[in-house]
Amino acid sequence: MEELYKDLREEVEPLLAERRFEAIKQILSANNAQDIAELITHQPPKEQVLLFRLLDKELAVDVFEHLSSPDQQHLLQNFQDSKVKDILEEMSPDDLARLLDEVPAVVAKRLVQLLPPQERKNTSTLLGYPENTAGRIMTPEYVALKREMTVAEALDKIRRVGLEKETVYYCYVVDEKRRLVGIVSLKLLVIKPPTAIIGDIMDSDAISVRTEDDQEKVARDLQKYDLLAVPVVDKEDRLVGIITVDDVMDVMEEEVTEDIYRMGGVEVPDTGYFKARVFSVVGRRVGWLLILLITNTLTGNIIMGQSDTLKSVVALAAFIPLLIGSGGNIGAQSSTVMVRGLALREVSARNYWGLLSREVGIGCLLGVMLGTIVTIWAYWLQGNWLVSLTVGLSLVVISTLASLAGGMLPFVFSRLKLDPAIMSAPVITTMVDVLGVFTYFQVARFILFK
Amino acid sequence: MEELYKDLREEVEPLLAERRFEAIKQILSANNAQDIAELITHQPPKEQVLLFRLLDKELAVDVFEHLSSPDQQHLLQNFQDSKVKDILEEMSPDDLARLLDEVPAVVAKRLVQLLPPQERKNTSTLLGYPENTAGRIMTPEYVALKREMTVAEALDKIRRVGLEKETVYYCYVVDEKRRLVGIVSLKLLVIKPPTAIIGDIMDSDAISVRTEDDQEKVARDLQKYDLLAVPVVDKEDRLVGIITVDDVMDVMEEEVTEDIYRMGGVEVPDTGYFKARVFSVVGRRVGWLLILLITNTLTGNIIMGQSDTLKSVVALAAFIPLLIGSGGNIGAQSSTVMVRGLALREVSARNYWGLLSREVGIGCLLGVMLGTIVTIWAYWLQGNWLVSLTVGLSLVVISTLASLAGGMLPFVFSRLKLDPAIMSAPVITTMVDVLGVFTYFQVARFILFK
Repeated sequence: MEELYKDLREEVEPLLAERRFEAIKQILSANNAQDIAELITHQPPKEQVLLFRLLDKELAVDVFEHLSSPDQQHLLQNFQDSKVKDILEEMSPDDLARLLDEVPAVVAKRLVQLLPPQERKNTSTLLGYPENTAGRIMTPEYVALKREMTVAEALDKIRRVGLEKETVYYCYVVDEKRRLVGIVSLKLLVIKPPTAIIGDIMDSDAISVRTEDDQEKVARDLQKYDLLAVPVVDKEDRLVGIITVDDVMDVMEEEVTEDIYRMGGVEVPDTGYFKARVFSVVGRRVGWLLILLITNTLTGNIIMGQSDTLKSVVALAAFIPLLIGSGGNIGAQSSTVMVRGLALREVSARNYWGLLSREVGIGCLLGVMLGTIVTIWAYWLQGNWLVSLTVGLSLVVISTLASLAGGMLPFVFSRLKLDPAIMSAPVITTMVDVLGVFTYFQVARFILFK
Repeated sequence: MEELYKDLREEVEPLLAERRFEAIKQILSANNAQDIAELITHQPPKEQVLLFRLLDKELAVDVFEHLSSPDQQHLLQNFQDSKVKDILEEMSPDDLARLLDEVPAVVAKRLVQLLPPQERKNTSTLLGYPENTAGRIMTPEYVALKREMTVAEALDKIRRVGLEKETVYYCYVVDEKRRLVGIVSLKLLVIKPPTAIIGDIMDSDAISVRTEDDQEKVARDLQKYDLLAVPVVDKEDRLVGIITVDDVMDVMEEEVTEDIYRMGGVEVPDTGYFKARVFSVVGRRVGWLLILLITNTLTGNIIMGQSDTLKSVVALAAFIPLLIGSGGNIGAQSSTVMVRGLALREVSARNYWGLLSREVGIGCLLGVMLGTIVTIWAYWLQGNWLVSLTVGLSLVVISTLASLAGGMLPFVFSRLKLDPAIMSAPVITTMVDVLGVFTYFQVARFILFK
């Protein structure tokens, strides 16, 4: 809880400044791993190492798993091999795979060599799956049962191996070829008589995912079917791992953050925006800005091409920002709802044309409403009805085009197997700038110089 | 799974058109509630009622709980009281509270009267808590244990009552005043010997939330501490309910969708954007657009005020869209990262000033890079070095101001206890339009007419 963690920092930081390590050690041992991890995250590098050394071995591993990967790397560099080995051995295979994935290759190699053979095998299997797939985020630590076992035997097995497993709330029933044939919940095992046979009580119709499935699909399935964990099978239907709900929540948050950043026209470094170096952030932001800048030079070219028109009616220039600004906002609204609708599967190929024409209709309606107001205001500002009419009519056309672009492009991108979030508010706004200026001068020539 | 559900629609829809109800009934009984709910969601109102009538009683309740609230209302209106009563009685109290919350008051009253006394009491208790709080989304259906029970007695209790409870994976230990004193996981109950005493094995230091806590805070806590459920206590520390991870995932998705829509300048109707009527959507979108339009009239006024400047150097007009467009994009990037950073608690009062000055520095750097390019392009376009310099220098100033506005305003809003997402890309872009045009003419007067 936010309050708890504030207390912990307020308690520990003064002691740390005075180097009162014994007192800190006592405080830390009474706190939980997540809060200590947050405390460590907020310290400078040297203090991170000091604090981490004060933790008991078991707590240390737990805290380590809750740190971000740059913090993990920094700590590992400051430890002796024996301590690193202790930590790595105790980490769960999926967390370990994620860490190895993010350190430089040469560090990863050194770390893998510190692992005992079985752990090394598990981890390198997980690393064999492409990023963002179910295979990469699953853990091989599940409880496997056989069809012919009784409930009593199953409970016995859970008692023996359960403490090391990620979850015991679902157990997975496999045949002699390790193919997944059913699922039994711990709830059912507790409720059924000890002599009942697993094969008779298991759910043989359970949901599973494949190793190559996208992690976002897995997250959606777990959420849709209200599951605590989902089994992962390979191409031969053999059970190779499970994915638990807590890992999925982290995946969801990561994916949503990526989407949101992208919708704002920002590509995010792996370390997260606020922890990345200034130059790496600038490098990632300037790419989109340059593309948008070059697109926007078109507006300059269009206006320069109309300099005679402008010289004769200078008032036309006054309404350019308002027209393209309003159009851009309508376009940004449309692309926002479409991108999110696609992510939530509310928009699909099936209902797309209906939703797009609805969107364009809404854009046109909004244009008529705003256009009427703008016409009146433009007249008040410069007293020429024809110019005012040009401005108002342009806004109707621009709004309609903006909602068409904002509604259409995210879908086109998703069809091309590209992330629809690339068609972000900044991109649509810039396109509407160009379209809007062009439209405006066309309408002006039609009304004013016919 | 997406594929599964497509199959179901493809299978059922032709049969529905031919009114072959017996065949449909058989197909439906072999499918799960979530997929049937999705099938029903996509049908026209009349077909929804037909399909729902074909479900067995138990499956019907399950499907009903997975429908959206407008679909639920529509179905209830088409059933007789006895059928409505059956469904309501079987619904879990938190789902029922949500339904009653969303139907018109007069319908809610009629529905509540159909409930048996105990259900009525549960539901109206939940309805007593404000929206978006832990109290509103919790369920009173948990397993409560006493400290002096043995493990065997606890397992016995789970066998008796477990089937009706939302989760049995955590059991909650309460004292004689119903105050929460500890938590025992089902895993522990299975692993520990039957004679062990609950009071000795329970975790008495467990995380709990309060009824008045914001649902977003609950979601964050559950995610941070990797919990499957969290107990909810009232002001006297009495246990009143639990919140399970599946409900929290729905809350997270809702909150994120709200944030994303708001960041795109769209207020969303309760029914969801794509199901709402066109006029209700227009009504909710036009509000922001009007505010932004009125703000943007300032750009028109500023430009009209400079019409003499413009008449003597018409070329200045050509660069307005590019300048305010690029500035707007930089501002949108800054506000996006700040709004998300605040939501994820990466940005707080503690580190804010550092992050803001970093953000402004980044904006200034981006401005210098883009400004250099623009100066050269502007010279190529119209051949006047002074005008080009005006454009380039303005872009540096505008970029810096834009990142200041985008970085500062979300934080100011969160301090004022308002949603920082209100400072969306469209709002920041519009503000930068005004600021940008003003800056541009100031710089122009300084360089060109000094």
